[in-house]
Amino acid sequence: MLSVKYPGRSTMGERNLRLTVAYDGTHFLGWQAQAKGRTVQSTLTAALERMHHHPVVVHAAGRTDSGVHAIGQVVNFVTDIDSIPAERMGLALNQLLPMDLRVSDSAEAKPEFHARFDARRRTYRYNILTAPVGVPHLRLYSHRVLHQLDLSLLNRIAAPLIGEHDFTTFAAPSESSPSKVREVYSAAFHAEGQLTVFTICANGFLWRMVRSLVGTILKLAQQNECSDTLRAMLEAQDRSLVGPTAPPQGLFLYKVDYDE
Amino acid sequence: MLSVKYPGRSTMGERNLRLTVAYDGTHFLGWQAQAKGRTVQSTLTAALERMHHHPVVVHAAGRTDSGVHAIGQVVNFVTDIDSIPAERMGLALNQLLPMDLRVSDSAEAKPEFHARFDARRRTYRYNILTAPVGVPHLRLYSHRVLHQLDLSLLNRIAAPLIGEHDFTTFAAPSESSPSKVREVYSAAFHAEGQLTVFTICANGFLWRMVRSLVGTILKLAQQNECSDTLRAMLEAQDRSLVGPTAPPQGLFLYKVDYDE
Repeated sequence: MLSVKYPGRSTMGERNLRLTVAYDGTHFLGWQAQAKGRTVQSTLTAALERMHHHPVVVHAAGRTDSGVHAIGQVVNFVTDIDSIPAERMGLALNQLLPMDLRVSDSAEAKPEFHARFDARRRTYRYNILTAPVGVPHLRLYSHRVLHQLDLSLLNRIAAPLIGEHDFTTFAAPSESSPSKVREVYSAAFHAEGQLTVFTICANGFLWRMVRSLVGTILKLAQQNECSDTLRAMLEAQDRSLVGPTAPPQGLFLYKVDYDE
Repeated sequence: MLSVKYPGRSTMGERNLRLTVAYDGTHFLGWQAQAKGRTVQSTLTAALERMHHHPVVVHAAGRTDSGVHAIGQVVNFVTDIDSIPAERMGLALNQLLPMDLRVSDSAEAKPEFHARFDARRRTYRYNILTAPVGVPHLRLYSHRVLHQLDLSLLNRIAAPLIGEHDFTTFAAPSESSPSKVREVYSAAFHAEGQLTVFTICANGFLWRMVRSLVGTILKLAQQNECSDTLRAMLEAQDRSLVGPTAPPQGLFLYKVDYDE
């Protein structure tokens, strides 16, 4: 039974619901529930348990770190509530959730749907602000750099990311995935108002990989490195080569795609 | 003497400094110092007084309300500190200020310069988000509306604002300006990413005028009113005609211009 293999999958008489969730990560200690502190998972679970009057297990596509935001995080959980149509579950939950955590969509999923294991593509965005002095209303949603950025240089540096690579170089030391191979479908910088935005889409990411990539690309750009440097760093599979990890507040889990 | 007429103007041996100031209005009870509570003026004055060891009077171009943000607020104050070049005063002050209040520029001004009385043009921006569910990271920096917005309809409705008008209709009941006549140089809506932004530039504004205009234009757009309605409302000089006042968190004091 799939419900044994993946706890939280539905059994007869229950429905497996899929939610799209957005949050301002500023006042959350990341996604994952922990013994102490406010997390997205614990806040969402508390609202679901108020509704269900029994424990509810929630699975998320991406386990974002403290301070990281989400626009299109996807989660699933099994419900035995039959009085609320799946499409209205988001509205009902939003009544119980704080304003920095919103359910933007809810729908019934197949019984075997799992938000994490079934995700085919994840898209992250990272906001970079170029400014000599901080911009207060953007401070919690961007990483500020002092030096001007050259978009075409950034994109030349990032180009070797596309394709299937072993990302050991850009994994956090505590990364536990058995394989460090991921396929990157797109990775590019564009200008958006005052911000320079890095958008990366891949089948999956190692822990802190996006922030490590952004920090490294910014460092390479500042050193005016050529476009082959990142390729060489990937091939070396050596964590000591990378630049600083960019801070969490610039990062947004933007979108998660599934086969439908 | 000008220094008598406008307390805070400089006398011999002192310099009149002009600062450009940005703030996230979320945790400020507006610009104006008051008996209790954290305001931008009191926070800035406290930093200046720590630096000067005596009272300092600060004048601002626009006295923003609680929750309203600023990107280019302009202030001036007279300093007797001669050890810090005017251009470095911003850096020095930022060491003493919280991260939600930043000085982005500092320069010496003419002795008679007054940030409020000398301002020729003020530009405000108002962010509107069209979304069925709140977007957490934008919730403190935009006003959310549920219905779709038609940019060209909004701009047709707003067009009669351009020019010199008596804005009594859009003044707060407690507005104390003897004249309600202001000249609007530009007023238009444009799309910016997920946001619809209203930008309005005028020689001056009555209290809550921008928020009253935005609330009214949104209401007229929803009722699909024609472009003459706002003109008729202006001419009526009747406050009872206006729509709801749009909330503060969408409003930014964007820019203040002076004759140079």
